[in-house]
Amino acid sequence: MMTRPGRGRGYHHGNLREALLDEAERALDREGAAGLALRAIARAVGVTHTAAYHHFPDREALLRAVAARGFDRFAAALAAGERRMAGARGFQEMGVAYVRFAVEHASLFRLMFGPEAARGRDADEALRAASDRAFQVLLAGVRRVAPRADEDAVRRRAVAAWSAVHGLSALLLDGQLEHAGFSADDPERAAREVLGGGAPPR
Amino acid sequence: MMTRPGRGRGYHHGNLREALLDEAERALDREGAAGLALRAIARAVGVTHTAAYHHFPDREALLRAVAARGFDRFAAALAAGERRMAGARGFQEMGVAYVRFAVEHASLFRLMFGPEAARGRDADEALRAASDRAFQVLLAGVRRVAPRADEDAVRRRAVAAWSAVHGLSALLLDGQLEHAGFSADDPERAAREVLGGGAPPR
Repeated sequence: MMTRPGRGRGYHHGNLREALLDEAERALDREGAAGLALRAIARAVGVTHTAAYHHFPDREALLRAVAARGFDRFAAALAAGERRMAGARGFQEMGVAYVRFAVEHASLFRLMFGPEAARGRDADEALRAASDRAFQVLLAGVRRVAPRADEDAVRRRAVAAWSAVHGLSALLLDGQLEHAGFSADDPERAAREVLGGGAPPR
Repeated sequence: MMTRPGRGRGYHHGNLREALLDEAERALDREGAAGLALRAIARAVGVTHTAAYHHFPDREALLRAVAARGFDRFAAALAAGERRMAGARGFQEMGVAYVRFAVEHASLFRLMFGPEAARGRDADEALRAASDRAFQVLLAGVRRVAPRADEDAVRRRAVAAWSAVHGLSALLLDGQLEHAGFSADDPERAAREVLGGGAPPR
């Protein structure tokens, strides 16, 4: 294993945190959540584990920080998807962006929506705030296509739209739709055909 | 550990297979898929592991048989849900039945739709046939509410409806909707509020 001694000394405080998160995400891609071990990640970045513990006191803290950063990128991807088109088509593009993100960042997506991150919400203000921001992007999208809906209807429609894209993502990721003609190799086509028809969200 | 010696001799061929599957499902409930160990299951049923191997040559075969039996019960639950109401309401009740089954049989549901069972489809005719029967219940439901749709549209609508109920199930199971006011403690309410409004499936 390569330890790159000495390299750690070059990190500023914020830099090291980001470097550890970058490395954690690479480990997640390679090995799934089971591969997230703080010592190995510190070693790969070239710092002592004491330096890493300074940012993340335990594996769960690291995992929650990876999930929080994932939610920030995810919210940005949803908003960018929506901006591609006006009105109901924009809302549909947000759904396409959701499914694309899920399939293209499968391990990160599983982490973000897995039970560990759900439990972490209560303990971790940053994770809760990041996942709330992503949910707010969805709520704002529903309000734009259903401007007269009251807040309770907005919430129900948002959860309905979320369920549809989340379910499609999960079924694609788990290879459940091959026999129905949809594969994770082309998440955009699956999203457009399944969510599509240009119909606005109910 | 209790071995109940001698009890195994009382099994007929078909009885033992069912007894092993019953015990496997109990182990699944207790410990998740990681708890499915053929030797321990044989021991709990009171037979030698040779007798168990006769029915299930390896852990994967047992897992696929549990999933296949799960799909049969699941298809029956979907059909029973649909029969509760006529027309589009019946289709919605099928969705409620889907979410209820997922939440009430969480470990079995995760196994049925997990990547191992998806891979097992190709190897296991019985599993493929059982999961196809469940999908046919869904297709038949779509055809009843959209009798003029061509087969391609039926397939797309079926996958859309499937995605919605599958996503809602997954989000409830993983505790992702607590902040939106929905919990796995009341899957029926969540399903009715989210899928509902009496609107027919698009």
